Amino acid sequence: MSASPSTLRGVLSPVLTPFEADLPPSVPRFVRHCRALVAQGVGLAVFGTNSEGNSLSVAEKRMLLDALVEAGLPASRMMPGTGTCALPDTIELTRHAVQAGCAGVLMLPPFYYKGVSDEGLYRSFSSVIDAVADPRLRVYLYHIPPVAQVGISLRLIERLLTAYPGVVAGIKDSSGDWNNTNAVIEAFAARGFEVYAGSETFLLQTLRAGGAGCISATANVNGAAIAASAAAWREPGADDRQAALDRVRAAFQKRPMIAAMKAAIATGTGDEGWCRVRPPLVELDAEARRGLDADLDAIGYARPTLGT
Amino acid sequence: MSASPSTLRGVLSPVLTPFEADLPPSVPRFVRHCRALVAQGVGLAVFGTNSEGNSLSVAEKRMLLDALVEAGLPASRMMPGTGTCALPDTIELTRHAVQAGCAGVLMLPPFYYKGVSDEGLYRSFSSVIDAVADPRLRVYLYHIPPVAQVGISLRLIERLLTAYPGVVAGIKDSSGDWNNTNAVIEAFAARGFEVYAGSETFLLQTLRAGGAGCISATANVNGAAIAASAAAWREPGADDRQAALDRVRAAFQKRPMIAAMKAAIATGTGDEGWCRVRPPLVELDAEARRGLDADLDAIGYARPTLGT
Repeated sequence: MSASPSTLRGVLSPVLTPFEADLPPSVPRFVRHCRALVAQGVGLAVFGTNSEGNSLSVAEKRMLLDALVEAGLPASRMMPGTGTCALPDTIELTRHAVQAGCAGVLMLPPFYYKGVSDEGLYRSFSSVIDAVADPRLRVYLYHIPPVAQVGISLRLIERLLTAYPGVVAGIKDSSGDWNNTNAVIEAFAARGFEVYAGSETFLLQTLRAGGAGCISATANVNGAAIAASAAAWREPGADDRQAALDRVRAAFQKRPMIAAMKAAIATGTGDEGWCRVRPPLVELDAEARRGLDADLDAIGYARPTLGT
Repeated sequence: MSASPSTLRGVLSPVLTPFEADLPPSVPRFVRHCRALVAQGVGLAVFGTNSEGNSLSVAEKRMLLDALVEAGLPASRMMPGTGTCALPDTIELTRHAVQAGCAGVLMLPPFYYKGVSDEGLYRSFSSVIDAVADPRLRVYLYHIPPVAQVGISLRLIERLLTAYPGVVAGIKDSSGDWNNTNAVIEAFAARGFEVYAGSETFLLQTLRAGGAGCISATANVNGAAIAASAAAWREPGADDRQAALDRVRAAFQKRPMIAAMKAAIATGTGDEGWCRVRPPLVELDAEARRGLDADLDAIGYARPTLGT
């Protein structure tokens, strides 16, 4: 009983969330950025880690998702993050995403308590699935132990996949541990479970092993190239294209990534408002920004213009 | 410019949150438990870590706080947890607590992103204080690195205390590191900054060093004895009383503490509904509960009856 391939496969971006001066989300910038991403073949994993998703209230996330749908962006390409610390919030966001027609949701485990049991995490995910109780729901598990600290074991995936075949649809593996990603693909891909690497660093490896693609922060600022690499992964030159992606990523990864990506978009669009982040993050200082610019210029990187 | 001593000094409890069968909070059980705690001389640090506070939505926390005030419980003894990952949520909860007349709020730093800078944390706390903009606000910083992972440094306290004297009122130190608690007391207590140990394990040491008391999970189930020890800390027998507190704590600490304390209240009140926890936590299984009961019986511990 394996699900048919989703409309999400390939490359998605945890879409950066732009802010206005007093830090409400900036809807016009957000819609414009999402439109540019979709045009590049990049799906919309809004409200992820690099989206500052957990720095947004439930009401803000509902509002932003509604704004995207109203702007005509395709829900078939959306995988909003809906996992929070509080069960009622996760249920509300997940239900809202399903009702908006989103192809999937990316669900963090509750991440405040550390060292919790697989039984407790199973109950967390199953409580949400049971409460939403909608056959359209597709859950992508979000495994990001470096940040959430609470991870998703192979045993937990097995149990969830057996209990909710077709609903538990895949995973984003941001462990940074290829052995784990490969083990998940080997164990579950044959059952239609879609495995996304947590960055394009593992894109080629993931696709070659039978995974579905990647959900990568850098797709915010290098989306066209990452999507092209994913589309042509079987064709000659794939390793060279992967190496080019890695060079761009390295320049961003040397700095606080969210602030660095926002700075690159600010430069590309001429809109300095793009630099804003919510606390506890801070924007790049002038020196860090000069360093980023120098590194990006050295590799001939063209900043995003978001279609202007 | 040191503040006058607060009405909170002594012993507070991160009040356990009871749930109904489908896991909404149980208001009647909550009010009754809070009433029993106050009668024992224990203040109400509702929505803390041992309250499953981060497993509650903003609306649920507002509702529960309103229920306590409506039930006539004294806001002068309340220090609700209001720190979340999302700035708008923290502002909303903090504002609500101030408007309810709470003597203070216990504020976690935003805890999703790890390795954030003191500058980012300073902006987090100062954004909340500036947004609430109420002279009645008293912020107690919540330092609990074993769970939140994001801690509060002495340098950050110094900066906040200098910028917001009288508003930044104290700290709960749940590091479990006496050297840190002692350093905070030595650096800031003379300025009226109230230092609460994160458990009664350090109660006597904290009071002797010039701290304000403790905010301890076990005060949910051993409140009268902990409050009595705090009140009589200068009198003969203080070390023996501390040793007795430690024996009770040890029995609870050997198990998942929240589930164990709820089980003890379930036994004491005869109300098995008290055992419920929200995912990702799980209740004690039968074997763990038998072990807890045996340990508690061995030390002659009397379970809480909540005034019945």
